[in-house]
Amino acid sequence: MEYTLLSKEQLLEEKLLLDKKYEELKSKKLNLNMARGILAKEQLDLTQDMLSVLKTKEDCITEVGTDCRNYGLLDGIPGAKRLFSEILGIPSECLIIGGNSSLNLMYDTIARNMIFGVEEEGSTPWAAQGKIKFLCPSPGYDRHFSITAKMGMELIPVDMKEDGPDMDQIETLVENDESIKGIWCVPKYSNPTGVIFSDEVIRRFASLKPKAKDFRIFWDDAYTIHFLYNDLASQPCLLEEAKKYGNENMVYIFTSTSKISFPGSGVSVIASSKHNIEAIKKHMSVQTIGHDKLNQMRHVKFFGSKEGVIEQMKRHAEIIAPKFKLVDEIFERELSGLGIAKWSKPEGGYFISLDTMEGTAKRVYEMMCDLGVNLTPAGATFPYGKDPRDCNLRIAPTFPPLSELEQACEALCLCVKLAAIEKLA
Amino acid sequence: MEYTLLSKEQLLEEKLLLDKKYEELKSKKLNLNMARGILAKEQLDLTQDMLSVLKTKEDCITEVGTDCRNYGLLDGIPGAKRLFSEILGIPSECLIIGGNSSLNLMYDTIARNMIFGVEEEGSTPWAAQGKIKFLCPSPGYDRHFSITAKMGMELIPVDMKEDGPDMDQIETLVENDESIKGIWCVPKYSNPTGVIFSDEVIRRFASLKPKAKDFRIFWDDAYTIHFLYNDLASQPCLLEEAKKYGNENMVYIFTSTSKISFPGSGVSVIASSKHNIEAIKKHMSVQTIGHDKLNQMRHVKFFGSKEGVIEQMKRHAEIIAPKFKLVDEIFERELSGLGIAKWSKPEGGYFISLDTMEGTAKRVYEMMCDLGVNLTPAGATFPYGKDPRDCNLRIAPTFPPLSELEQACEALCLCVKLAAIEKLA
Repeated sequence: MEYTLLSKEQLLEEKLLLDKKYEELKSKKLNLNMARGILAKEQLDLTQDMLSVLKTKEDCITEVGTDCRNYGLLDGIPGAKRLFSEILGIPSECLIIGGNSSLNLMYDTIARNMIFGVEEEGSTPWAAQGKIKFLCPSPGYDRHFSITAKMGMELIPVDMKEDGPDMDQIETLVENDESIKGIWCVPKYSNPTGVIFSDEVIRRFASLKPKAKDFRIFWDDAYTIHFLYNDLASQPCLLEEAKKYGNENMVYIFTSTSKISFPGSGVSVIASSKHNIEAIKKHMSVQTIGHDKLNQMRHVKFFGSKEGVIEQMKRHAEIIAPKFKLVDEIFERELSGLGIAKWSKPEGGYFISLDTMEGTAKRVYEMMCDLGVNLTPAGATFPYGKDPRDCNLRIAPTFPPLSELEQACEALCLCVKLAAIEKLA
Repeated sequence: MEYTLLSKEQLLEEKLLLDKKYEELKSKKLNLNMARGILAKEQLDLTQDMLSVLKTKEDCITEVGTDCRNYGLLDGIPGAKRLFSEILGIPSECLIIGGNSSLNLMYDTIARNMIFGVEEEGSTPWAAQGKIKFLCPSPGYDRHFSITAKMGMELIPVDMKEDGPDMDQIETLVENDESIKGIWCVPKYSNPTGVIFSDEVIRRFASLKPKAKDFRIFWDDAYTIHFLYNDLASQPCLLEEAKKYGNENMVYIFTSTSKISFPGSGVSVIASSKHNIEAIKKHMSVQTIGHDKLNQMRHVKFFGSKEGVIEQMKRHAEIIAPKFKLVDEIFERELSGLGIAKWSKPEGGYFISLDTMEGTAKRVYEMMCDLGVNLTPAGATFPYGKDPRDCNLRIAPTFPPLSELEQACEALCLCVKLAAIEKLA
């Protein structure tokens, strides 16, 4: 029965039972982690053979004759460009292959715009424009928010809906406020909601008429092919859509193989208009000697093509989909019908978004810490770590083995119930 | 006989002979490269086996149990820290392991100081201080100068002497001008002069009393163990020296394995005071998920220790020292006694610095292009690419095979002579 319909006595009775279970669990001294989208050991093993694909010297030579062991090819080897071009559906000339971290590419892009302005000639550095603002669809990815917060920007939360961020809000804000310089988006299997931006949302992004001429969309397509149930959601390419409205310079697209090959030893990419890419390359020639071409070559040789990557993603899904299903089953069993929780049922990506009863997420997080289960801190999915309704928690089910995940989820449900009763009683 | 002592007739006679040789060479349509410090193929082969040291899953686990294939260890794996700690003589806690490019670490450090100021609490961003300046001992490394020029700083050349940059100039400038925020240095086997900074120069750097509290020394120890004749020059550690004067926060030290293992697929490092390193790590936690730990592990497994690296450097020296000798022999044979050229005789590093007759370096560069030999552009070793005396050329002898190097050097001597005669006649 819904908790809100229980009498105070019934609630306290229930609390007694739950308290007992909580103390039992506490005595078990758990040490579990559902905090971040970390790969399970079995997932890492899928790519182990990539570490020995470069056997001979000849393996290190690109199709254009460049020796990947030496300097050269600032913007990536042709094979890596082709691979990402296939995955993203974007021409090679609109891509730059980055290093091991797409987050670093995003940071670099923000930092470059802060110091030098965007890619237009004579553009004013963001840092020289006084207080500037950045839109943050929330719940969203804490590391995105951290970058723009670190830069001293004002972060403006935007509601997330079933089909993407609230475009009415975004249009009104962007079209009327010149100090808004950008927006963070994870368009597919969004972090943490799993939302897949609809075609209409993408069209509205593509056709934005920002007041700020140096407004930019940071489109973090981190989970572009990260399906759970062998059914890859297709989505229009934002860059192509934006071109229809003359807006192609407004778009940066990012992705990486962090959750395809190895986190920390993958390959990242930035895509944008040809104009922007040329400007960024020119800048990069001052910034770096170029990224690790041998690691690019490992990826090219190991995966071969988009099809090779898709096959790999099926193997990943075999390992992690049961974990998503298990969390959902436990939530259904323990929480449904109580009126104190809602959660996402993602078709891809790395997270489940759990909304607890308003005003209880922090309390749940504390109780979970106390039980020895590491969760993403409550509030982390909102700008400045402040969830206005204090209800969102991000669940990352991929890392723990099923048995540990079960324990962690049961503990979580217990805490969600206890916190709700504390609030109600 | 010295060219300056020849009569106009003698000069023109010599010119006729040289012109003939020049035309002969031109007809050969050479295609040679002495432009940049690129590794020879044989040098790359020395490290080929590093690409297969990670055979099993267990090979990917650090001594502290971290799986290098996954997220974690933002500042580097313990083994990599130990290796660089041995090489630089700096405690591990004062190091951060970077990505594949120390240039990128330097750029990041400059960019961070531009946007946020140095590591002191409440420090004003460099970008918010109006026109700021950077000291550039010259001839020096063009890519250093490019970073600070790109940032809009005013670059101030400082003379290079036999034992390092002119410390009288530096002290006067730094101690009286608050707008001077830093200096670029390559302290050992300097680029391009091969100069080894003396103990006294290092002591004077360590004891600088800059007017700007946010002044920083960018100490690019790129060639720290890159000897040519199995005799590694020892040098006091700037960080340790600076500590004696309470100046340890003033120092950033950089190095990498770009010319030990693979350019583009090496490992870089930044060292500084414990205070600075802690502040930089905090910043890095926003900037990136961390660098490639598998590549760090490859280096640790392949080299094992500083001794392992030294052995590798001996093998590098076996390949490249004969090239440096050949250039010196040809210069001696063709140019000595003519009073039109001076050149360095480095004991390490990657370059020979050639001073032609004043006002002729650009002309020599043009003639070399015309012959199909790619040199570092004349002027590149000075801020803004402007050599005030137009005499310095940087020779990079490591890449071409000996036979090609011989051709290129003979062509170079011919052009140096021709340009001098053009100037004199």
